[in-house]
Amino acid sequence: MDLENTLAAHLSQITPPNMALAESAAQREANLAKPPGSLGRLEGLAIQLSAIQNSSWPRHENKLMVVCAADHGVVEEGVSPYSQSVTRQQIVNFSRGGGAITTLCQTVGAQVLLLDVGVNYQFEPNPKIINKKISLGTKNLAKGPAMTRDEAIRSLLAGIDVVLAQPTLDLVAAGEMGIGNTTPSSCICCVYTGLSPEKATGRGSGLSQNKLAHKVDVVRRALEINKPDPLDPIDVLAKVGGLDIGAMTGVYLGAAIRRAGIIVDGFIAGAAATLAEKLSPGISRYFIAGHRSQEPGHQAFLDLLSLNPLLDLNMWLGEGSGAAIAMFVAQCAVVHFNEMRTMSEAMIDEPS
Amino acid sequence: MDLENTLAAHLSQITPPNMALAESAAQREANLAKPPGSLGRLEGLAIQLSAIQNSSWPRHENKLMVVCAADHGVVEEGVSPYSQSVTRQQIVNFSRGGGAITTLCQTVGAQVLLLDVGVNYQFEPNPKIINKKISLGTKNLAKGPAMTRDEAIRSLLAGIDVVLAQPTLDLVAAGEMGIGNTTPSSCICCVYTGLSPEKATGRGSGLSQNKLAHKVDVVRRALEINKPDPLDPIDVLAKVGGLDIGAMTGVYLGAAIRRAGIIVDGFIAGAAATLAEKLSPGISRYFIAGHRSQEPGHQAFLDLLSLNPLLDLNMWLGEGSGAAIAMFVAQCAVVHFNEMRTMSEAMIDEPS
Repeated sequence: MDLENTLAAHLSQITPPNMALAESAAQREANLAKPPGSLGRLEGLAIQLSAIQNSSWPRHENKLMVVCAADHGVVEEGVSPYSQSVTRQQIVNFSRGGGAITTLCQTVGAQVLLLDVGVNYQFEPNPKIINKKISLGTKNLAKGPAMTRDEAIRSLLAGIDVVLAQPTLDLVAAGEMGIGNTTPSSCICCVYTGLSPEKATGRGSGLSQNKLAHKVDVVRRALEINKPDPLDPIDVLAKVGGLDIGAMTGVYLGAAIRRAGIIVDGFIAGAAATLAEKLSPGISRYFIAGHRSQEPGHQAFLDLLSLNPLLDLNMWLGEGSGAAIAMFVAQCAVVHFNEMRTMSEAMIDEPS
Repeated sequence: MDLENTLAAHLSQITPPNMALAESAAQREANLAKPPGSLGRLEGLAIQLSAIQNSSWPRHENKLMVVCAADHGVVEEGVSPYSQSVTRQQIVNFSRGGGAITTLCQTVGAQVLLLDVGVNYQFEPNPKIINKKISLGTKNLAKGPAMTRDEAIRSLLAGIDVVLAQPTLDLVAAGEMGIGNTTPSSCICCVYTGLSPEKATGRGSGLSQNKLAHKVDVVRRALEINKPDPLDPIDVLAKVGGLDIGAMTGVYLGAAIRRAGIIVDGFIAGAAATLAEKLSPGISRYFIAGHRSQEPGHQAFLDLLSLNPLLDLNMWLGEGSGAAIAMFVAQCAVVHFNEMRTMSEAMIDEPS
């Protein structure tokens, strides 16, 4: 089976959440021992997770964070204050538990998988780093396509395969480590949200204000030279995307196949989530927006996907950090829903 | 020693957070293996907790939620859709683990103490309910003082004593169960924030729109009849407060004596936190606002205390529910700060 057919076979397995279960979950929620509606976002989350997981009793116990790592040829344009070597250095740091994402996932009880789909470095064999390397990083998208169409599909399949290889999954998120990856994310933002390069491009990991104009110009050139076709999300991913972004998209597709709740992180995750929605329209009903990123283009992705983030903690790190914290909110949604007594079970007088 | 002197002796033990430790914590935070500032609110929280706890390595392990329970004579005015019996019914439900606050505290790993300072019911002896009952509830504050000055001080001392009796404490929150308690909270809001009764009064646990005008009128009458003295917070608590609110204030005072981080819940907690600030000016530096409540007067309390809530999940339940979830954000702040490697420890190249 060729790559396109393999991907299509996976996509055909994604089905909508079970809305009948959403209705019965909403009834239970309304009868719990509290004023109806008073737990706000937790209530809708519990109902959504019941429908997604196809279960009257939603679950949170098995949480997975897949950190997708790859390098980006566009860093030669000076779009990041960090050198490309930081991608591999951080993956080694993550493998030792010393990164932001690993400490946050430890705190929330999520398993972390480090998925190398394109880091510009051959790691020593390391049981904590899954080697699905497709290349040593993308080419410079400001000068031509970031990768071939086959490479793009292989990045999607890498994410799908990692998720499908896991045992039980209840909540899944994708994180990333790839110096330069806000630049392809801004390109994807322009393609799908209609924002201009000026509005879709931000300071990423802390680019200085005077280099931001150059980054905007890189995004504009990438779009002009590559002319990605919005009707073909694989073309968009191949020409102006990244291997990490493709793998994240694959993680979302795999999680929907497995009927897990999908916690979407910030701006880069928004690009991957948008590609997933274009590849599998309706998958956004599996999405829970974890947090509002400080990147200026993030809101446009949220609007496109009709998502309202759970958290706004002024974060702009990436790595999956916002999604990791938001997993706890989803856990609270599940636990209150399953463990609270109803008004009648608790023998509490109804309001007048 | 009389009650006023006992309280004064406690208040004299509250000292400011250690700002020298805040400075060294800020240095460590800036050197962690991520772009400085990229973890947003988590960074300031870690620094604040280091200063509060007087420790280079802040802690989160010992979390305490004290749910303060009492009844309110003002319910005879029809200010709540729930009958007074629901206070005791919910405390019994909480003692069995079936309430919102108990399931959320279980999720975050916080110990729950149920503190009865004035429920209109004599509970069977129950090891899960701490009996410090001061009366069977306040009098109707729309007709005269809610309680005596001695009762008000005893409610403060009850909260202080419960906290001081605990072993190690890292993060402390106060919750409440007391049908009718948004009405005294609105009175306290008017006294200290200058909001009108119309702007300080909301629908509490779901009062119908057409009964809201009456609740506003109750708040106005309470203020006119009692003329609480803003310069004397005990006078305010006694005349237009509640035993649950007084105990919550005491929990905050006790937590500051113990140098624990204080997670403040929503509107009712805002009233208690404001009384604590009036009794011990500067204690607000121990406060972390857990969430933004849907009650209209909440923002005025936040402004008065210069607090910016961590979460906004459209919640309006009370019980301490928003603070319970926010405890996890504080935990993330502590864990990332203590466990992440620095840039140099992780051998990561500095940005240009």
